[in-house]
Amino acid sequence: MARTPTGESVLARAVRVLDAFTADEPGLTVGEVARRSGLHVATASRLVAELVAHGLLERGPGREVRVGVRLWELGARASPTVSLRDAAMPFLEDVHAVVGHHAQLGVLDGEDVLFLERLSARDAVINFSRIAGRLPLPTSSSGLVLLAHAPYDVQERVLSRPLRPITPAGFGTAAPLRTALAEVRRSQAAVLAGHQHPDATGVAVPVRDGRGDVVAALSVIVPNDGRGRDLVPLLLAAARGISRALRGPDAPVA
Amino acid sequence: MARTPTGESVLARAVRVLDAFTADEPGLTVGEVARRSGLHVATASRLVAELVAHGLLERGPGREVRVGVRLWELGARASPTVSLRDAAMPFLEDVHAVVGHHAQLGVLDGEDVLFLERLSARDAVINFSRIAGRLPLPTSSSGLVLLAHAPYDVQERVLSRPLRPITPAGFGTAAPLRTALAEVRRSQAAVLAGHQHPDATGVAVPVRDGRGDVVAALSVIVPNDGRGRDLVPLLLAAARGISRALRGPDAPVA
Repeated sequence: MARTPTGESVLARAVRVLDAFTADEPGLTVGEVARRSGLHVATASRLVAELVAHGLLERGPGREVRVGVRLWELGARASPTVSLRDAAMPFLEDVHAVVGHHAQLGVLDGEDVLFLERLSARDAVINFSRIAGRLPLPTSSSGLVLLAHAPYDVQERVLSRPLRPITPAGFGTAAPLRTALAEVRRSQAAVLAGHQHPDATGVAVPVRDGRGDVVAALSVIVPNDGRGRDLVPLLLAAARGISRALRGPDAPVA
Repeated sequence: MARTPTGESVLARAVRVLDAFTADEPGLTVGEVARRSGLHVATASRLVAELVAHGLLERGPGREVRVGVRLWELGARASPTVSLRDAAMPFLEDVHAVVGHHAQLGVLDGEDVLFLERLSARDAVINFSRIAGRLPLPTSSSGLVLLAHAPYDVQERVLSRPLRPITPAGFGTAAPLRTALAEVRRSQAAVLAGHQHPDATGVAVPVRDGRGDVVAALSVIVPNDGRGRDLVPLLLAAARGISRALRGPDAPVA
């Protein structure tokens, strides 16, 4: 693999450049790309030019560059997460139509929940997830479900580090988090009232593949009015539908 | 930019590797990657290893590799197409709930329509689009809308080449296609009965941004029963809603 004088590969630097773009700041100048990716401006400029030539970045208005449609296409066309999302979509739509607010699908990635899909009503209660956005596992109901079923080493790593609750309702120490994880495994659902925002409750259940392994969390975010747990049966039924679609010849042909 | 002995950059080769994966064959062995990307097996093997190290590819069961969740995340997180899709989603859901079958959102990319989103009912009429899939502009209703509003040089390129209709109903020569494009501009809708499949009709309308430029096509695929045109007012109203969301402070905060 071709390497730069510092020993870092061209691909590694290209990934650092692509990683500089976020949902909050989708358009960056070459100078901003260089600063965020820790590269010299000349290096960043060369890499940006080549990424633009391949359509992975696009030149926007003014001097900004942004993520190109080709990068989205390469990532979306053959991604296993997209098959999962396709199987889940009809059920997510049903949940969203019945519950309103936000309905979302998240997967475990590292020590985060990564949201593959989110359907939102215009007047929905506040929520901080977004598509392709991440939240730390212990702070959200989806994360709690994924953590409860995560490999032992992931659980131990998360539990051995300081927790960073977002609100006073959040988990500040390992003991209550351990209790909550056991409860999630027992009840097949996580209900977190006010952990992301005082006005919101997250309700999440596991989605299992054909082998019974938990591959995703299906969740809704609703007002923090004490009635979140009432939605668990609806979510469990929808999660069963997704599992069936993942297994079956019934599965929507993508 | 670091280059291989043949003069092709590492990034160019990495893109060829990523391009080898498709929705039909999301899992490939290194040998298959080499064959499809036209690289030596040793080169493909090195590139695959580095792409796996960065999470852009993942090792699946057996000897297969597939697209990694990180590639999807990089493409989805900050892509302008994702903002468009987010603005359109509530309206697409409404159209899908009312019409059933398939509702989709496509954009112009090169001489294809690239589908950003598709919502499908289980018992929907046949359709060949898929998310992150492409269709040639003259063969689909979405493509016809995008072509009708495409830059002059794109239109001339498409019209100057042999057309490849998929069914006998499709456009075989430039003259009827020119007439259809003029009709799309006049009526603000494309209704193509049986152009993709004898049993299906595509109905598409343009989606405009705040400056009035056409940025996408909103479409439905319904049975070929002669009633497709009845859906045009519904689609035009939904497209106006999307335009308002793209402009407004009303736009869903992603």
